[in-house]
Amino acid sequence: MSLLAVGTVAFDNIKTPFGSAENAVGGAATYISLAASYYTHQIKIVSVIGDDFPEGELNYLKSKGIDLEGLQIKHGEKSFFWSGNYHTNMNSRDTLDTQLNVLAGFDPVLPASYKRSEYIMLGNLTPSVQKRVIDQLDAKPKLIALDTMNYWMDTAMAELKEVLKLTNVLIINEEEARQLSGEYSLVRAAADIHKMGPETIVIKKGEHGALLFRGTKVFFAPALPLADIFDPTGAGDTFAGGFMGYLASTDDTSFENMKRAVIYGSAMASFCVEKFGIERLKGLTDHEITKRIIRFVELVNFDPKL
Amino acid sequence: MSLLAVGTVAFDNIKTPFGSAENAVGGAATYISLAASYYTHQIKIVSVIGDDFPEGELNYLKSKGIDLEGLQIKHGEKSFFWSGNYHTNMNSRDTLDTQLNVLAGFDPVLPASYKRSEYIMLGNLTPSVQKRVIDQLDAKPKLIALDTMNYWMDTAMAELKEVLKLTNVLIINEEEARQLSGEYSLVRAAADIHKMGPETIVIKKGEHGALLFRGTKVFFAPALPLADIFDPTGAGDTFAGGFMGYLASTDDTSFENMKRAVIYGSAMASFCVEKFGIERLKGLTDHEITKRIIRFVELVNFDPKL
Repeated sequence: MSLLAVGTVAFDNIKTPFGSAENAVGGAATYISLAASYYTHQIKIVSVIGDDFPEGELNYLKSKGIDLEGLQIKHGEKSFFWSGNYHTNMNSRDTLDTQLNVLAGFDPVLPASYKRSEYIMLGNLTPSVQKRVIDQLDAKPKLIALDTMNYWMDTAMAELKEVLKLTNVLIINEEEARQLSGEYSLVRAAADIHKMGPETIVIKKGEHGALLFRGTKVFFAPALPLADIFDPTGAGDTFAGGFMGYLASTDDTSFENMKRAVIYGSAMASFCVEKFGIERLKGLTDHEITKRIIRFVELVNFDPKL
Repeated sequence: MSLLAVGTVAFDNIKTPFGSAENAVGGAATYISLAASYYTHQIKIVSVIGDDFPEGELNYLKSKGIDLEGLQIKHGEKSFFWSGNYHTNMNSRDTLDTQLNVLAGFDPVLPASYKRSEYIMLGNLTPSVQKRVIDQLDAKPKLIALDTMNYWMDTAMAELKEVLKLTNVLIINEEEARQLSGEYSLVRAAADIHKMGPETIVIKKGEHGALLFRGTKVFFAPALPLADIFDPTGAGDTFAGGFMGYLASTDDTSFENMKRAVIYGSAMASFCVEKFGIERLKGLTDHEITKRIIRFVELVNFDPKL
């Protein structure tokens, strides 16, 4: 099935205790579509860039089967830019600079060929932009997943709640789940968010793994214990991309299949953090991915001998 | 096999967002032995109390098959007392009061019947006191596990390193593992601590579960996602008690069996936090425990379909 990935395509300046990268290609839609490309080849991007974006990078995405017809290129303008500095613990970071550039007036336009996409991944963007994408769909998709952040809860909660009503799967982190629900317990937070619309809630806990909630069902995916987290940038989007790519490729939204999707997403995220930006996500082999999945199985597998 | 549990037997004043308890029976040795009593009936306590400890509570421990011959009762003195206040997130707490009382001059004396114990759980105490217990053993035990805390790393690191050399399993929390090793990554921390003596390292992450390391092997046990954590006091000691009780009852220190022990310890800890102090650990049924273990299995179980 086809996967529509909406989000930024951008440049990042990244500094971590392990080094730094300047003008690294990043953005939610980039990470999502690249991670998903290992599972499905029907990926369509909706985003906007300036004319400063290297054509080689766009050609690379195309070579992975990613359709860029919905990627607007604004001539004479600059692409979205983010600059950040990670602390030693890699769980917190300072944003040094954010230049919206082309993103400031972004009006997503879906090409005709996108309007019957079955799986929709709405990366973190203004809730009203996320909603405009849904509004342009010609047919009800099989699954809409949404990412968001605290900033939109602070500044656009009403719009966020509108788009949440249309969302099947909300993918957010611990702190965001707590802020959105006002509940500290993630069990209570998920139950509360469910009432806002999404029947499935994925709560990302970074190095502590991820929780998948649907009704009274809950599944826990660990994060792989790593000696070094080189650069966490994009790990959350990579998770979402692996998750949605796997769901689109299998076209199965059952809870059992979502468990696998969470593990496949976690595996992609575990690659992402091993190098700067999207570097490690380029040129992965099926064998590498399968080996990684097996590590996740072995990490939690035990015989309870009951 | 017999399990020797060393640690405090004490009174706690506990305040959490859910309520408060005064002079609740607590202490590491209490939680350890009570949790272990669901797996093995050969438990021996080494500890010290004042004459203020209710006889009914001691009789209750005896009724669970816990041998109190090594529990010193100091007449005219008061038992160890701790008072603490948990914050909303339950991950941090303020210690309001600590009265060492009988613990100040505690010299552990092992009765003759204790000296050939096979499994030894050294709860958090002055490292030199932990070592004096080991020194009194007549035969090399099958397994020595040790708990400690940041305070001893700050004030008695040399003594702690001495007792670590004699330790098979170190059971500590995330922050303690980082302080002891100077490494942020828990993978690196475990590798570093291994060089200090213990071949197995268990790192407790509270609501995020626990990691078990031995050589290059790693196992992850999740914590059960709970709607309410009523009182976290003693959860770490309860984990250690379930872990060691299971190992002693099965007399199998293989990595595969330690995986089960970590899950069984996590299950006991998940009961502990449901009520104040040791209340929930009293009168559990085998059926309740088995049902809880099944929840741990289901929480992480998935078919990878590789």
